[in-house]
Amino acid sequence: MRIVLDAMGGDYAPAVVVDGGVQAAREYGVEIVLIGRREAVEPELARFDTAGLPLHLVHASEVIEMDEHPAQAVKTKRDSSMVVGMQMVRRGEADAFVTMGNSGGALAAALFHLGRLRGIKRPALSTVYPTGKGPAFIIDIGANTDCKPEYLLQFAVMGSVYAERVLGIANPRVGILSNGEEEGKGNFLVRDATPLLKSSGLNFVGNVEGKDVPAGLADVVVTDGFTGNVLIKTSEGVAAMLLEILQREIKARPLAVLGALLAKQAFRAVKRVLDYSEYGGGALLGVDGVVIVGHGRSNAKAVKNAVRVARAAVEGKVLEAIRTGIEAMPGFSQEGED
Amino acid sequence: MRIVLDAMGGDYAPAVVVDGGVQAAREYGVEIVLIGRREAVEPELARFDTAGLPLHLVHASEVIEMDEHPAQAVKTKRDSSMVVGMQMVRRGEADAFVTMGNSGGALAAALFHLGRLRGIKRPALSTVYPTGKGPAFIIDIGANTDCKPEYLLQFAVMGSVYAERVLGIANPRVGILSNGEEEGKGNFLVRDATPLLKSSGLNFVGNVEGKDVPAGLADVVVTDGFTGNVLIKTSEGVAAMLLEILQREIKARPLAVLGALLAKQAFRAVKRVLDYSEYGGGALLGVDGVVIVGHGRSNAKAVKNAVRVARAAVEGKVLEAIRTGIEAMPGFSQEGED
Repeated sequence: MRIVLDAMGGDYAPAVVVDGGVQAAREYGVEIVLIGRREAVEPELARFDTAGLPLHLVHASEVIEMDEHPAQAVKTKRDSSMVVGMQMVRRGEADAFVTMGNSGGALAAALFHLGRLRGIKRPALSTVYPTGKGPAFIIDIGANTDCKPEYLLQFAVMGSVYAERVLGIANPRVGILSNGEEEGKGNFLVRDATPLLKSSGLNFVGNVEGKDVPAGLADVVVTDGFTGNVLIKTSEGVAAMLLEILQREIKARPLAVLGALLAKQAFRAVKRVLDYSEYGGGALLGVDGVVIVGHGRSNAKAVKNAVRVARAAVEGKVLEAIRTGIEAMPGFSQEGED
Repeated sequence: MRIVLDAMGGDYAPAVVVDGGVQAAREYGVEIVLIGRREAVEPELARFDTAGLPLHLVHASEVIEMDEHPAQAVKTKRDSSMVVGMQMVRRGEADAFVTMGNSGGALAAALFHLGRLRGIKRPALSTVYPTGKGPAFIIDIGANTDCKPEYLLQFAVMGSVYAERVLGIANPRVGILSNGEEEGKGNFLVRDATPLLKSSGLNFVGNVEGKDVPAGLADVVVTDGFTGNVLIKTSEGVAAMLLEILQREIKARPLAVLGALLAKQAFRAVKRVLDYSEYGGGALLGVDGVVIVGHGRSNAKAVKNAVRVARAAVEGKVLEAIRTGIEAMPGFSQEGED
């Protein structure tokens, strides 16, 4: 198996990406293709002993930056790491593409160079979300700000396949994010998507509220990309605010500083539960190729784990399973467009 | 000033409501009318020395429960505490209505018995949201799951008035909740509401993301009721999950238990920052009367503070200020309907 890793993507690229890629090549028995600007990547590679590792570098002269307009950047930067990497997957020269870069750029590059899976109306971005009871999977988190009910049905199918085959959750509980638990609560989109989900054959558990997501009441949370984005960013923000206030209040009290020292291992354990780097990021689902998109702030461990996730998606034949799942849905059309 | 307090509303009614009402009558120099079932409220009142306090009881034989269908309950339960309380406000027998009960019921009862302020298209539910930098104000949190851009403009006007007059924030920064900071990010609703907000004369600071809300980057966060509800419930859920995991990890380690004891005051200070009971709940804005809706889980302090908030809204002439603000907006029509 060969996995292309975008050496230029992410807040700490290329250093941490190269670090994570070297670790992945060592541990996972997959071939890693680092793609990026040779002059930037080579010095980072030189810091490691890579002799004998299944790892090599493919040069791509351009970079899609984090704050660039995705579609435009993909069109003009034809020799960017994202575009060249996606093309390798399309031509069958690699099995998966992994990036910590601009997620909108990855979406645009994938749409343009891989295309959609047959029957898929809209690809979606997803992420693994730590809860008190293990990871949940949120789809969509930003690819589609305005959705139709049929999109949400397809997100549910894709999310369910992914949770089962990559996260190893048997018969995943699929919930739809809403503003109340009772059926009938929700905006028009949620209320119109509900009957589709109920008759989908998925393990649909109905509405989940914002508080139910961190409580782990669903394995797959289906939502439009606007609300999903608010959900994950609010969660990050609240956790950061809480830890910041706690630190501030501890620092203001000498006894508390001592107490925090004694409780250090407990704090570390909490951080481990919340640590997205364990999960290796989410996926771009619905395109005709395995594309894993990690968090921009990923460290080397997160990069390594993103490669592990990509390997699991390839081995789990996620694309074929999504294709089969989508074709089994009522209203399936080969076109996908609507 | 006379404030009607719904003795039957909230998860711990009537006990904590009576307790909070007695405290408010003692501290705030306002007359409190407890409204509810005499046989349920009187025994609770008997636990306090209320001699000489500006406090009395008005009997209402019915109760709108937390899980009832709001509009239906309001129609059939004409002698419920909510309906009778709102009618007292309408007839000028009281200056404000305060409840910890079914927020949908409060909305329905207010629409039916108080009506909308002139020019208001949709009343909205709001709440005070603790951030690392003091309270922010979120509007809407559930009254309107599907919105038009003009509604969001009106929410912004109402929220800005409320933040200034009740929370005491001068020239409040108004942000619109979105899935990215840059202008142009957002769903159709956000993108269509943005030009209205920019030309509103309010202190509009543009898009805020989920993580910006707990960070305190806006004083007033405008959003549709669906997304606002997800925002506040996710925040509650993440905070609860974090504290639960922290407790679990501390309890598993004897040294950490000792450490947590030493850091107790710091933990308490964190809880104080996050404690919604300090803020006394949110308001139902856009109806022709001051209506304060607190959290169902409110304790006596929260009830007392909700009365304080109601007093501030009456003294700050919030209704008149909203009326003036709405009339100053382009496109104002006396009808309000659209």
